[in-house]
Amino acid sequence: MIHGNGPVLLTPGPLTTSAATREAMLYDWGSWDEAFNRMTKSICRDLLAIVSGHDDFVCVPMQGSGTFAVEAALGSLVPHDAVVLVPNNGAYCARMLKILERLGIAAVELKFHDDEPASVARIQAMFERDPRITHVAQVHLETSAGLLNPLDEIAALCAQHGKRLIVDAMSSFGALPIDVSKGGIDALISASGKCLEGVPGMGFVIVRRSLLEASAGIARSLALDIHDQYAYMLKTTQWRFTPPTHVVAALRAALDQFFAEGGQPERGTRYRSNCAALIDGMTALGFEPYLDADVQAPVIVTFHAPRDTSYDFKRFYEAVRDAGYVLYPGKLTDVETFRVGCIGAIDADDIRGAVAAIGRALQTLNVSVAT
Amino acid sequence: MIHGNGPVLLTPGPLTTSAATREAMLYDWGSWDEAFNRMTKSICRDLLAIVSGHDDFVCVPMQGSGTFAVEAALGSLVPHDAVVLVPNNGAYCARMLKILERLGIAAVELKFHDDEPASVARIQAMFERDPRITHVAQVHLETSAGLLNPLDEIAALCAQHGKRLIVDAMSSFGALPIDVSKGGIDALISASGKCLEGVPGMGFVIVRRSLLEASAGIARSLALDIHDQYAYMLKTTQWRFTPPTHVVAALRAALDQFFAEGGQPERGTRYRSNCAALIDGMTALGFEPYLDADVQAPVIVTFHAPRDTSYDFKRFYEAVRDAGYVLYPGKLTDVETFRVGCIGAIDADDIRGAVAAIGRALQTLNVSVAT
Repeated sequence: MIHGNGPVLLTPGPLTTSAATREAMLYDWGSWDEAFNRMTKSICRDLLAIVSGHDDFVCVPMQGSGTFAVEAALGSLVPHDAVVLVPNNGAYCARMLKILERLGIAAVELKFHDDEPASVARIQAMFERDPRITHVAQVHLETSAGLLNPLDEIAALCAQHGKRLIVDAMSSFGALPIDVSKGGIDALISASGKCLEGVPGMGFVIVRRSLLEASAGIARSLALDIHDQYAYMLKTTQWRFTPPTHVVAALRAALDQFFAEGGQPERGTRYRSNCAALIDGMTALGFEPYLDADVQAPVIVTFHAPRDTSYDFKRFYEAVRDAGYVLYPGKLTDVETFRVGCIGAIDADDIRGAVAAIGRALQTLNVSVAT
Repeated sequence: MIHGNGPVLLTPGPLTTSAATREAMLYDWGSWDEAFNRMTKSICRDLLAIVSGHDDFVCVPMQGSGTFAVEAALGSLVPHDAVVLVPNNGAYCARMLKILERLGIAAVELKFHDDEPASVARIQAMFERDPRITHVAQVHLETSAGLLNPLDEIAALCAQHGKRLIVDAMSSFGALPIDVSKGGIDALISASGKCLEGVPGMGFVIVRRSLLEASAGIARSLALDIHDQYAYMLKTTQWRFTPPTHVVAALRAALDQFFAEGGQPERGTRYRSNCAALIDGMTALGFEPYLDADVQAPVIVTFHAPRDTSYDFKRFYEAVRDAGYVLYPGKLTDVETFRVGCIGAIDADDIRGAVAAIGRALQTLNVSVAT
């Protein structure tokens, strides 16, 4: 693909956006103006459609990063007497536990290893062992390692057991199939700057209408109150507080390109092709992916760092960046890794260019890859 | 001034930005990259300099709108046993009261009329009457009416009485002189998309270093924890959660233009000139400003709506917008008004153009102004 004057970002967001998306930010929108508020409304309608959210779901946008929207959903939808089960296989699961702790909401952690998907059987066993559990907070795609959790099975289990399910779909929304009409999912959170290929600065919560309407007065925060945001928007068509107007306009442009590409199926196909080119190329250089292929999502890939003592991530990162590609550090605590994203306005040729740059950096730095 | 292809926004933010500010968003920054983190650091340094914040103050950026930064400051800096006095002369003061209520922080309201500045004597009387008061939360420039509160006097009073002072300087920062080195101000909050003429999407808190360092563990929220944001940034140079990279880059460009213009004194001079052109022109059309001249800040002006029964704000707004100028609705409860902003990348010629468009709209709509 043709890029601007910057390096290609192989990161899980902010990521490389298209020129059309960035150029949508060259116009100043008034936040009170009808045309802007129609744009917000069209974005919400399109985000719902991506996950088959029909009339029984609504989409509420939220200012800030994705984590702000996650905290907004947990803080606005989970009642004071709830107990939330958090299957934990990475940093973003741990972040949900931390949010629940800050908000004073009772939580139960169900620990998995970083490379192990959440187990439906173990979640079911927890439901039986601890009947106080009312909610499950599940990360769909754990970006720490790039791990895919079995969302459909977990949703079916929650529906069967009458548990509310809140899903952090930050780095899966738009890239992987999600269908809230099948039941089981009560709320789903993502953000502008991930697989939708907008710029960062806003998140959104797709939530079952009946649940949201029953949630007035729950929120622990004014800024992060999604019920208030929804009610105000219904009444006025406007955001409750100043919206990030340019970020919103960029998301509108990014969604237009998303649908022109063919929507989620085609976006997923491109990312799978990027991911395959990445793993093929890196394996040929001697690198080993951290995850097994069957749990690897086509969004971000964790590789073991070279064992060579002359390897230093910072120098490696800088050499690759100077060649025009930005890598991402690892986020695992017990093993040294680095990550390469497959998402953004990039294709398999960009990925092959990145792999070639990585190969040259290893030569220049005189690092052997044998892991 | 020369504008893009959109109308001129005469609103208190989002506002009309310069082409250079918008074009800074045409580049995708990696949030982990050194160059981006140096940019964040330079922004914080420059924001501190604008209010004479020397080594005993720090600047902490925060994702989201200005209200998110206000809630972050109150929720991260005010201890659980505090009692906060809120002098209230408008909607943004009322919003601080609402935030305090949500956070479970004890608050005392001191009510003023919408056109009446906070009275230092009445604040002092409240200190004497209610010695439980530990903090004052003060809006510097109440955007509801455009009213200026006497910040220097309130700061001196708080210093004298040993009360902590947290200031919402959302629509004054950069336009009006503020000097935290004179003492009395403990924290000061503003945002990217107001008088600094950046785009909306981030706020910041300028806070006394010793206060922030003593505030670990206070925050009621994870996303809105300014102590955590500060500590993480100190350790890593990075934002704690995904930053709005394009908004940050636009603020860097806007600050470069701010200093090139001559900093706060010259920005204030331009806005005063805009404000004078606005009030002169509108008065000539027969409009009457809501505020007395001595309490009118040169940022946004509230005008009484025409009493003519054929006046309808929506039709008036649309006629003026179609001529290329976006007005702002009133926000007062007891009298019908509308507002016109004097801020953004606009000059007195733009204001005269807006006044002419308003005059033509009145003629077209056959509305007489006599108030």
